[in-house]
Amino acid sequence: MVPKIRIDPGVVEARIMELARIGACYETGVCRTVYSPEWVEAQAVVERWCTEAGFATRRDAVGNIWGRVEGSEGGPAVVSGSHIDSQLPGGRYDGALGIIAAITAMEALVAQFGPPKRPVEALSFCEEEGSRFQGASFWGSRAITGQAPEGLADRLIDPQGTSMADAMRAVGLDPARIHEARRTDIGDFIELHVEQGPILEHAGYPVGIVNVINGARGYRVTVVGDSNHAGAMPMDLRRDPLVGAAEMVIAVQQNAVRLGRPAVATVGYIHAEPGWPAIIPKSVTFTINTRHNDRDALNGMAAAHEAAMREIAARHGLEVSWTGGDGLDPCPADPTIVALLEQSARDQGIAALTMPSGALHDAQRMAQIARMSMVFVQSKDGRSHTPEEYSSIEHCVAGIQVLAGGLYLLAW
Amino acid sequence: MVPKIRIDPGVVEARIMELARIGACYETGVCRTVYSPEWVEAQAVVERWCTEAGFATRRDAVGNIWGRVEGSEGGPAVVSGSHIDSQLPGGRYDGALGIIAAITAMEALVAQFGPPKRPVEALSFCEEEGSRFQGASFWGSRAITGQAPEGLADRLIDPQGTSMADAMRAVGLDPARIHEARRTDIGDFIELHVEQGPILEHAGYPVGIVNVINGARGYRVTVVGDSNHAGAMPMDLRRDPLVGAAEMVIAVQQNAVRLGRPAVATVGYIHAEPGWPAIIPKSVTFTINTRHNDRDALNGMAAAHEAAMREIAARHGLEVSWTGGDGLDPCPADPTIVALLEQSARDQGIAALTMPSGALHDAQRMAQIARMSMVFVQSKDGRSHTPEEYSSIEHCVAGIQVLAGGLYLLAW
Repeated sequence: MVPKIRIDPGVVEARIMELARIGACYETGVCRTVYSPEWVEAQAVVERWCTEAGFATRRDAVGNIWGRVEGSEGGPAVVSGSHIDSQLPGGRYDGALGIIAAITAMEALVAQFGPPKRPVEALSFCEEEGSRFQGASFWGSRAITGQAPEGLADRLIDPQGTSMADAMRAVGLDPARIHEARRTDIGDFIELHVEQGPILEHAGYPVGIVNVINGARGYRVTVVGDSNHAGAMPMDLRRDPLVGAAEMVIAVQQNAVRLGRPAVATVGYIHAEPGWPAIIPKSVTFTINTRHNDRDALNGMAAAHEAAMREIAARHGLEVSWTGGDGLDPCPADPTIVALLEQSARDQGIAALTMPSGALHDAQRMAQIARMSMVFVQSKDGRSHTPEEYSSIEHCVAGIQVLAGGLYLLAW
Repeated sequence: MVPKIRIDPGVVEARIMELARIGACYETGVCRTVYSPEWVEAQAVVERWCTEAGFATRRDAVGNIWGRVEGSEGGPAVVSGSHIDSQLPGGRYDGALGIIAAITAMEALVAQFGPPKRPVEALSFCEEEGSRFQGASFWGSRAITGQAPEGLADRLIDPQGTSMADAMRAVGLDPARIHEARRTDIGDFIELHVEQGPILEHAGYPVGIVNVINGARGYRVTVVGDSNHAGAMPMDLRRDPLVGAAEMVIAVQQNAVRLGRPAVATVGYIHAEPGWPAIIPKSVTFTINTRHNDRDALNGMAAAHEAAMREIAARHGLEVSWTGGDGLDPCPADPTIVALLEQSARDQGIAALTMPSGALHDAQRMAQIARMSMVFVQSKDGRSHTPEEYSSIEHCVAGIQVLAGGLYLLAW
């Protein structure tokens, strides 16, 4: 039985607002990229919170912040946290809330129940969004899980031409020591995050418990036809790549609609070359991002996308090619951790829906070295990756209570 | 009866190559924008050719070059010519060939038949493509026909921030005198141009005679939905503007296909905002360019596009809006001039197809002050507005012969 864990809404709100001011942009937005001055300031705040809470605090080789409470019986650590960096612009909750939740939950648990039996750690990942260095996504959890290969920091370049390695040096980190961030002594990892979708709101739950993180496949597709004069080339003699690409956009969307939830497929980027109103395009490039919680269903949907693209291209006499098609497989959460979080919610009287995560998370990487699950907090209107992102303090507190109950069952 | 007019293929080829070297780019391309150093050089070459041919040569207030042969009986002038500027990049034939044709035809006619009865003029329009100053298209023919309003040259700005007025001053022209370029003494205007489409090649004709220049309507359309996380937002709760826009692209294309030739509809530009692979777009902007040779059919097709866009937006719960919808009405050629050109081709044994022009031309403006028709020369593979544009010397000479026969019937 999990006793009701007392979380102070005032502390949660104050911490959200304190982090929200660092890199504030677009009124209610946050622009905080890895190794930027705003990032340094935000990680310093996280470090101060951990120190003030009495945690043993340290910064690792890639800039993740760890706050640790030793356990009286030792053993592998129970870790909770999320990422400090943001989209450009992102909102106040994506990532930040998970760090605040871990610190606030640990403080509350120590205050209410004394020191834990197992060591417990709050974690602020240095980078998750890939919003400064394309290809850097999940940098923090990749380093912790030993998936940040030698030399990669030299090859990742931001739009201003700065390499990740130089950006690390500028904040006092040594790229030669990245491998030292690796951890092999973590037993369990729970990440609290805003849902970033509308499912909890529609179903009327403040909190979700994640039983699987959906897998994703990504494509960059190019369709090539013949560029010609938009006035002088009759319709019956055209090879217009945008007409083919438009059919592909619809086919890809229909493939996901037919499968039903949780299948999704999105074309977020499209570009016609040369892109003049009076010229039939020579080529069209677009992206596909498609996800499912079941590996076979995901692969089947990806195959359906590929078949549709080939069929449409052949029917219109167009050439089609793509890169990608790979991605992350669906990542099931650990059933034991899911069950503990469900118990935590039930015992504390908080309505929680067990559900898949549509978005990718650091938790997916952490699952390779630890038992993993996640706690979701309801997102208003399902909005995320925008300054309009919002979750109520009431829902945030409910999520932190569910997280805290899980930590209690694992470590106290 | 038109006698066979002798055109020297060597002269035609040498002139094409001489102009092609000025502003040469992308191997076989031409980059020659109005009032640029390349433009100055090219108009100087045209001026030299006219002078060497014995024409009375002058540059008007906007930089059009005129080469005149007086007629023994006077009367309104018979004018032929085309534009010296190019797309970025354009080919060697678009515009340039029409200037070479006029000069070469007039030289040949004077050599073969002596001075004309009516005055005849070769004309090199300063600007047609709008490739330097957006909104400047048809600058030369607008000035000649009195459609270049006071002050416009100050408002048209090139990508480097230079106004058209300053660009004129830099080449020794006075924007205050633009109105002086107006002509009211032109009786007939014939423009030779490459077809820019595949119809002559497909039908097996070297030459076309234009009986109408198709009208055009242009739209800039914006579709707005909800931007959301591509992983976390279920398909059934999305308002994805790109799915709607894709249906609109197909509907617009189908509207033209259903009408058959010469109806065309083209989406040449499309952009999704914010344009990230993992974010459902907030909005999509695209252009429509649609053309027909019949005003009612053109208006009907434009109305069908608008109805389809409204229906698709409503069905998907999207917002749609657009600017534009206006453009140039179809412009019939003068039946007398068409008949004379048909006679010229027939008498000289040149197979010529009477056909609409899919592309817009200066001739459309000139039709407001003169009887107008055009001569088309076959385009290889229908290619135009590209360095790959090509017409054989044999076909160019055939076109110039048809033009020359028309001038002969009108002026000699």
